[in-house]
Amino acid sequence: MSEYLYIKNASQVITVSGSSNKPKVGREMSNIGVIENGSVLIKKDRIVLVGVNQAVEQYVNRLSEPVDVINAAGKVVTPGLIDPHTHIVFAGSREKELEMRLKGAKYIDILKAGGGILSTTAETRQASEQQLISETVPRLDRFLQYGVTTIEAKSGYGLTTMDEWKQLRVAKKLNEIHPIDLVSTFMGAHAVPNEYKENPDDFVQLIINEMLPLVAKEKLAEFCDVFCEEGVFTVEQSKIILVEGKRLGLLPKIHADEIVPFGGAELAAELGAVSADHLLRASEEGILEMAEKGVIAVLLPGTAFFLMAEPANARRMIEAGVAVALSTDRNPGSSPTESLPFIMNLACLTMKMTPEEVLAACTINAAHAINRAHEIGSIEVGKKADVILFDARNYQTLQYNYAVNLVDTVIKNGKVVVKGGVNVAKTEAFH
Amino acid sequence: MSEYLYIKNASQVITVSGSSNKPKVGREMSNIGVIENGSVLIKKDRIVLVGVNQAVEQYVNRLSEPVDVINAAGKVVTPGLIDPHTHIVFAGSREKELEMRLKGAKYIDILKAGGGILSTTAETRQASEQQLISETVPRLDRFLQYGVTTIEAKSGYGLTTMDEWKQLRVAKKLNEIHPIDLVSTFMGAHAVPNEYKENPDDFVQLIINEMLPLVAKEKLAEFCDVFCEEGVFTVEQSKIILVEGKRLGLLPKIHADEIVPFGGAELAAELGAVSADHLLRASEEGILEMAEKGVIAVLLPGTAFFLMAEPANARRMIEAGVAVALSTDRNPGSSPTESLPFIMNLACLTMKMTPEEVLAACTINAAHAINRAHEIGSIEVGKKADVILFDARNYQTLQYNYAVNLVDTVIKNGKVVVKGGVNVAKTEAFH
Ligand SMILES: [Zn+2]
Ligand SMILES: [Zn+2]
Repeated sequence: MSEYLYIKNASQVITVSGSSNKPKVGREMSNIGVIENGSVLIKKDRIVLVGVNQAVEQYVNRLSEPVDVINAAGKVVTPGLIDPHTHIVFAGSREKELEMRLKGAKYIDILKAGGGILSTTAETRQASEQQLISETVPRLDRFLQYGVTTIEAKSGYGLTTMDEWKQLRVAKKLNEIHPIDLVSTFMGAHAVPNEYKENPDDFVQLIINEMLPLVAKEKLAEFCDVFCEEGVFTVEQSKIILVEGKRLGLLPKIHADEIVPFGGAELAAELGAVSADHLLRASEEGILEMAEKGVIAVLLPGTAFFLMAEPANARRMIEAGVAVALSTDRNPGSSPTESLPFIMNLACLTMKMTPEEVLAACTINAAHAINRAHEIGSIEVGKKADVILFDARNYQTLQYNYAVNLVDTVIKNGKVVVKGGVNVAKTEAFH
Repeated sequence: MSEYLYIKNASQVITVSGSSNKPKVGREMSNIGVIENGSVLIKKDRIVLVGVNQAVEQYVNRLSEPVDVINAAGKVVTPGLIDPHTHIVFAGSREKELEMRLKGAKYIDILKAGGGILSTTAETRQASEQQLISETVPRLDRFLQYGVTTIEAKSGYGLTTMDEWKQLRVAKKLNEIHPIDLVSTFMGAHAVPNEYKENPDDFVQLIINEMLPLVAKEKLAEFCDVFCEEGVFTVEQSKIILVEGKRLGLLPKIHADEIVPFGGAELAAELGAVSADHLLRASEEGILEMAEKGVIAVLLPGTAFFLMAEPANARRMIEAGVAVALSTDRNPGSSPTESLPFIMNLACLTMKMTPEEVLAACTINAAHAINRAHEIGSIEVGKKADVILFDARNYQTLQYNYAVNLVDTVIKNGKVVVKGGVNVAKTEAFH
């Protein structure tokens, strides 16, 4: 094995370069740095050269060392895709709820039938760390096959100090053993557990007094997130939690304005949150304030699709100068998919984003949404060698051949982990 | 290699049995024959036994011959999926049209920019048979990876006698060399070519006098289809063509009521068509007449999704007693996908069909829509051994984990052609 990996002669290389300092907004989102007939040279785990074929070829020819070659003829090369919003660590499965919803059941009916978020909480609390790892690895494997090389992972199905801690420890362990990088978010405020139903403020105090200090002390998360929504956590409760998290070094994120306009976007702007997510019902003022304060909108059109709801107004946000990122929202209730490429299809067809914008949204803007834009999210010299080869002649084809997996090769940290669509990486001992 | 293939110990076997004589309608569509903990025994290319594990195991234990075993633990076994409506044989690709449509271009703008159906016609006319084969095989390969073992394939991108003949010859050749079975439909009346723009009735005469006799004589198709729509072929023209086709032994199918209510469903009932397809704007009378005459509704929710339109009213049709089948409508303009499993997801989420109904629609009802229900479309003793293993514990999961490929194993004519999601079949010489 050589230290060099040479991706040669691609039909297109989509670099998404030039925006590592701040996310792409407005028309910049359409500027994705297309190199026709391009090549990429990797050394160990870093990108060392990217350009048109002849230029890279010339450089490679002068190297005295051997070079491994991947022929990318007829393929599109992009940065590894980044999913900035998942709830991937959990136990159990909720496939029976779909049929209830199709037959008209409301969320409250599902809760009464023993379903909903608290059923996942019950199963996750019961599960051992080992069981959570075993159940999550196949989901990560599938993410990898769909070209996703980095994901954010939230806690929030434990809802006790020890179970939140367990979920975050599992994410940390998965980050170590799986090719995908996991970036953790503490989300104790994902739901009010049954035992605090009558006194939710006491649960907020538990988060403040026990959970956050433990998470911060053990450095188990980089972000703190809150489900700020009618009937879940109020704007006031959300603010208390996020401010305390920020004081302890956890950057704020918010599940905002998903079901009703609730002031979540405004709160995100006020606190200088890294991102506000969902935003189906965000107010015009909230959108303008997010643009002004540089809060990234993480949009989740798969959740809207699966819940049969109208998606967020992505076009208005882009026009208003908000940086838009996209995510699967992978979770067992409202978005059980790992196909971030399909989320791009949906963003085009249901939110009228363009093929250029969705690529910016799943690469450099997603990297900014998890504070990693200095090392991933574009194909630029010095960045981590997370690179995807798609079986497509141009990037438009990724949105044209919808709902099929066009990923041919995935390179993570300079190593080929998916080849011909097949996962060739080994997850240590847990598979 | 043994003559026997034993699929053992599945979490569920979905037989969809008992409807080989007529398609499932109404509540029958929910009756999909679920065997919990089931097994299937195949001998050569036929199913010889299906039942609960113990029963099949007992039989297998008494066999004196050796048996190949597939462990289906934790998997759902279904009949091979059937796609009863595709335009898969064509040359070229139209991915640039999507961006135009997202930016508000109308179909007429796309035509003016050199796109649309007639651009595919131009490319298909220019292509050699060999080129058409090479371009179509990767599409068939992808269908196979998504669990589709039989497809209908229409002509209609030639629009001259020789080019229609060429398309049908290619379909015949593909049927011989590819694991997927192709069932051909002649659709010379897919569009009025430029050279007949001023006198479309002359084109109808060309179809009647030249194309149909040639297709019938060479037995190149089993069905005749017409695009009966405002601005394409009138009800009167459609009727002339379909009646003449029927006289020559080609069973009628109709592209009906896709864009405006046009009487297509009514015509299908009048002619006793095998199916009427699309039906987004079918009238209530048309639906009732289809139910009465046993015309199958082939619904194409992927086309509605990709064209950003409202899908057909599947619930009304099922209530009215129409047998519903589903299809990708695979074509380069309005539905460039091979994922029939995703079409099932869409049918649930956008047309409120249930997980049971979509399975009936893609197996036995699809088989009826191409006149093959006597040999495929269910897992029953004596039928062809076209069987899929999905990586799912129950059939609901197929609609729950949306937009990802859960196909693990595909068995076509008793042979394993996809294994661990990977195509292991060889297409002779053309790959
Ligand atoms: Zn979420
Ligand atoms: Zn069609």
